[in-house]
Amino acid sequence: MRLAAVTVFVQRISTGFDMVPAAIIARKRDGHELSAEEIDAMIDGFLGGSVADYQMAAFAMAIVCRGMSRTETASLTSSMLNSGLLLPRVTDRPRVDKHSTGGLGDSTSLILAPLMACLEFDVPMLSGRGLGITGGTLDKLEAIEGYRCDLTRAEIAAQVDSIGCVITGTTPDIAPADRRLYALRDVTGTVESIPLITASIMSKKLAETLDALVLDVKFGSAAFMPELAQAESLAGSLIAIGQAVDLPTRVLLTSMEQPLGRMVGNACEVNEALEVLEGSTQSPLAQVTLALCSQLLLASGRSRDRAHAHTLLTNELNSGRPLRRFQQMVQAQNGIWRDRWPTAPAEPVLAEQAGYVSAIDGRRLGHAVIELGGGRKALGQPIDHRVGLEMLVRLGDAVSPGQPLVRIMAQRGPALEIAQRLVQQAISISPSGISQQPLIRTL
Amino acid sequence: MRLAAVTVFVQRISTGFDMVPAAIIARKRDGHELSAEEIDAMIDGFLGGSVADYQMAAFAMAIVCRGMSRTETASLTSSMLNSGLLLPRVTDRPRVDKHSTGGLGDSTSLILAPLMACLEFDVPMLSGRGLGITGGTLDKLEAIEGYRCDLTRAEIAAQVDSIGCVITGTTPDIAPADRRLYALRDVTGTVESIPLITASIMSKKLAETLDALVLDVKFGSAAFMPELAQAESLAGSLIAIGQAVDLPTRVLLTSMEQPLGRMVGNACEVNEALEVLEGSTQSPLAQVTLALCSQLLLASGRSRDRAHAHTLLTNELNSGRPLRRFQQMVQAQNGIWRDRWPTAPAEPVLAEQAGYVSAIDGRRLGHAVIELGGGRKALGQPIDHRVGLEMLVRLGDAVSPGQPLVRIMAQRGPALEIAQRLVQQAISISPSGISQQPLIRTL
Repeated sequence: MRLAAVTVFVQRISTGFDMVPAAIIARKRDGHELSAEEIDAMIDGFLGGSVADYQMAAFAMAIVCRGMSRTETASLTSSMLNSGLLLPRVTDRPRVDKHSTGGLGDSTSLILAPLMACLEFDVPMLSGRGLGITGGTLDKLEAIEGYRCDLTRAEIAAQVDSIGCVITGTTPDIAPADRRLYALRDVTGTVESIPLITASIMSKKLAETLDALVLDVKFGSAAFMPELAQAESLAGSLIAIGQAVDLPTRVLLTSMEQPLGRMVGNACEVNEALEVLEGSTQSPLAQVTLALCSQLLLASGRSRDRAHAHTLLTNELNSGRPLRRFQQMVQAQNGIWRDRWPTAPAEPVLAEQAGYVSAIDGRRLGHAVIELGGGRKALGQPIDHRVGLEMLVRLGDAVSPGQPLVRIMAQRGPALEIAQRLVQQAISISPSGISQQPLIRTL
Repeated sequence: MRLAAVTVFVQRISTGFDMVPAAIIARKRDGHELSAEEIDAMIDGFLGGSVADYQMAAFAMAIVCRGMSRTETASLTSSMLNSGLLLPRVTDRPRVDKHSTGGLGDSTSLILAPLMACLEFDVPMLSGRGLGITGGTLDKLEAIEGYRCDLTRAEIAAQVDSIGCVITGTTPDIAPADRRLYALRDVTGTVESIPLITASIMSKKLAETLDALVLDVKFGSAAFMPELAQAESLAGSLIAIGQAVDLPTRVLLTSMEQPLGRMVGNACEVNEALEVLEGSTQSPLAQVTLALCSQLLLASGRSRDRAHAHTLLTNELNSGRPLRRFQQMVQAQNGIWRDRWPTAPAEPVLAEQAGYVSAIDGRRLGHAVIELGGGRKALGQPIDHRVGLEMLVRLGDAVSPGQPLVRIMAQRGPALEIAQRLVQQAISISPSGISQQPLIRTL
């Protein structure tokens, strides 16, 4: 027998202190919609010390279990945003950014930031670390020797002014409530909540004081959030926050039935991003990047239609300017520039039978990279930036026995053997072809 | 829009550490049934320090929201019981106890303990304080000057040996996990959960090493848990635990559509209990007490039917022995004996119209007693034991204008005025009579 406890069934003394934490928590537990004042009281109290960690943990679990309305989610986002400072506006250029919900082989940020900067946009991108099976933009950039991800607000402002783009970690003075709440959620089983994820993402993006935002909400086995239905819910929730604060916000839903890029891993993804910055625009990675940039051009009013946006973007890439801007950004952030960054020796994984690639299990590929040391099993673990995978086939490709499917970049050893097994299991080969998902959907 | 989050929708790295707190919490959050090992890990870790307060708070909220199966509830009870010690058996006499879920004017414990002791049962009763609008047995007994509610396990054993009954607070070495968890639940909005309430009640009762247990599960406006459906659920959950450990456990569901006793308040309830101990067996208070004692006589095999039990009990009450045993218990626990304990001066509340008493709102009556200082608005507040209410009418009684309905025992002042208003509002008078609930139901 399971018992629902949606209604309050125990009589309470009405003390008049309806703003005490336990009363607010109980209202959420009972499925009521909280007011902006109640949500502010919880977030402000959490930062100020009058709401204890254990009260915030119970509150987070009540939100996970009972959900939040769009209005509540907007209030929570606003409370978290107001817990810290904003990035100052330093130029007259329109300011844009992108957020991705996380997927394998996704180095779009490394291309988008310098590309949009070349088109006279400011891109003050605050990024994160790898989460679950997916890599993190900061982890990738740290494959570049010396690259600093800890710029201060003043350093960010100065670099946006001079170069137009920056990719760094969130500063401690931006949305500190989100930082503390996320650390608590991570150890209390309260990560998986669309309102909490929405408020976490949007509070940091709103602190960037943007003029337009594009969201890449990913689904499929190589995504942080595999289910399309959940991705659509999150997309709707994120867009609603953008609308609530009059920030032009666009969403693309992108399929992660296989890794987005040919490369999965830190240094090798930086190298692949360089290929696109050098003008190679046919790959799925380039297509998604161009689609995201197009949405920003449309949202900001720079382009009247997608064809115009696409031409503008491809011409810009072909000019070589975005590559040089990326180099400027890396060097401004103390990184030592190279044409390519070093990767570990490659070992191929071969097809064992003939047929067509019918499924690619991103989860297993992600685990393989983690086993090799390219991702983290626990918070704070060091990363080996040189390891990774090169995908030599994509879904639907015909293969013959002995044909290389994937190259694993890693030193020989037990971890490589585990990774080889995981990669072999990750790629399904069947006698007939498959019907493929479109790569990009609009909401 | 509200979003359910029952299913895990975010991919997790399988670390192999499935017993880490966050993983166990997430399993409960996702509605899975936990194993005894998982529940033990949480409770043992909580006491040992490896499970933080915030993790236990999130776990408690997940239990509130997702419920627990009977098996899980039994495991939780067992974990909490095993976190502490048992009361030692010191005699060959059968050992019994009663637990009530809390209601206004309920002083049955004060009668049941000495009455059953006179019938050669041991009654090692561990009681509690007032909760919500309802009074607590310990608060009532502390109306007796000097009465100690803090006996040690050794003192409890010695008094059970010599007198056969004791009513005292739970000792720190009994179910310490329950004590710590309850304090956390109180400030995190996680009190209202049938599995958590069940484990809290039963872990302490099982620590008494009983041979039979009777539960008085109360419903109605004068009860801690007003809804009959919820009371029935709790009753079922409590009985299931008794069955799981082969403890003969009986339940009565008793109506609290009005206070059980004529008196509501601490000293005046002790005085009313004395009336029953002096042989007055017709009142609802006496009827419920005798019904509870009868269940213990039946459960322990002492009586073959209710008629036998009832005769045994009323003869015993009429003998005067239970009153003397109560006096022995009070004096053994350092209380100064009197024939009656002092109460505050009485002020009547008068009927404003003619008709029949059609409803009595126990919630308002309970609030009135709290306003007078006879209960607590916050944990640890001191109590004025002399204040209270005497109910001069019961549901269905015909009344005429100006007739006294209730006598309020309190000093004059603003609190009395608030109490008068609450009491006046609590008693509804309508032109026609009403159909009454039976006082006692079996499950």
